[in-house]
Amino acid sequence: MPENSKKVPEVVINRLPRYYRYLGDLLSQGITKVSSTELSKKMGVTASQIRQDFNFFGGFGQQGYGYNIEYLYSEIAKILGLNDGNTMIIVGAGNLGHALANHAGFEKRGFKLVAIFDNSKDIIGKEINHIKVRDISELEDYLLNNRVDIGVLTVPNKAVHNIAYRLVEGGVKAILNFSYSELNLPDDISVENVHLSDPLMTLSYKLKRSKI
Amino acid sequence: MPENSKKVPEVVINRLPRYYRYLGDLLSQGITKVSSTELSKKMGVTASQIRQDFNFFGGFGQQGYGYNIEYLYSEIAKILGLNDGNTMIIVGAGNLGHALANHAGFEKRGFKLVAIFDNSKDIIGKEINHIKVRDISELEDYLLNNRVDIGVLTVPNKAVHNIAYRLVEGGVKAILNFSYSELNLPDDISVENVHLSDPLMTLSYKLKRSKI
Repeated sequence: MPENSKKVPEVVINRLPRYYRYLGDLLSQGITKVSSTELSKKMGVTASQIRQDFNFFGGFGQQGYGYNIEYLYSEIAKILGLNDGNTMIIVGAGNLGHALANHAGFEKRGFKLVAIFDNSKDIIGKEINHIKVRDISELEDYLLNNRVDIGVLTVPNKAVHNIAYRLVEGGVKAILNFSYSELNLPDDISVENVHLSDPLMTLSYKLKRSKI
Repeated sequence: MPENSKKVPEVVINRLPRYYRYLGDLLSQGITKVSSTELSKKMGVTASQIRQDFNFFGGFGQQGYGYNIEYLYSEIAKILGLNDGNTMIIVGAGNLGHALANHAGFEKRGFKLVAIFDNSKDIIGKEINHIKVRDISELEDYLLNNRVDIGVLTVPNKAVHNIAYRLVEGGVKAILNFSYSELNLPDDISVENVHLSDPLMTLSYKLKRSKI
């Protein structure tokens, strides 16, 4: 599927994982076709927006009464690079790092957790999801000898800049940052920040509205 | 600040927490004014989009070279209901529940964690962030005697529908769902779903693009 040469807007990129999840749900229910109208209801965007989104990637040819879900699902997987064998490491084996290391959804979507690092003597050497936690002092050595595509940062705020810098120095090109701190990294490094209090604030807004 | 009677689009609502966070960052750096152009660079939306967003809430009167950050910050806090004393409980005291119970950002934004529930004998009675984990069998009784605004669900997928139902029966109007399962709840219940693999998929996309 040839990708449109036009730059794909961030908001469209951010919808791709949601399309992918929703199509996966439909497939697991044995559904094989979906119309842009049905998709739009679920996604909370208009049907024309969905067609516009898909046109960035060649359109996926909606025919008759809908899209072929299996085809659409596998095409979006390709666009997202879910078949590329991306490897990831987690730095910070506290509760959140622990939870992420056990998150079944990552492996299911093609992300291979290859190492976990921490600086605490209490955790180093223990196994999480069959992976032994390494000493953070081994990070540079590990990056020199292993391909790591994505670094997941679940370290305290005060440590995050230093660790991010070390990952980038070691050749990691993508970082998933769970700390509150914004990272200042070179332009060729992709960063996604996860702010766990954002959805709580959204709920708070909706609660307030519903009371009016 | 009178809110525009027009329904605020979901996408605008979802930007409010980000505005709030960014303004808080600026304040903590001692900055007092910001232009819509500066805000727009940071937020990755156009300056005109920012003005449109703010117009839903009366506009916040940008004057001269920018917005008064302290005023804007406190107005957005009010709109988000962050001063409303929202109470929350966490159901599921595994690693993720544990991490969330210790998440400093929640309290900082006005969310008060009042109880934690689990069904495991190993965890019930233990303290997390000074809160004793209660037996899930006490949930109904607790909801009968305490106001709970938000329920945070960090239970396994197979348990999530039952627990969500029990929360709603007990009068909880807002749910933050960390499970993979979509909840089917009455229309007057606000639900936010957190899918931790979405930002990983976005990173994967960006990695793939950057290689081309």
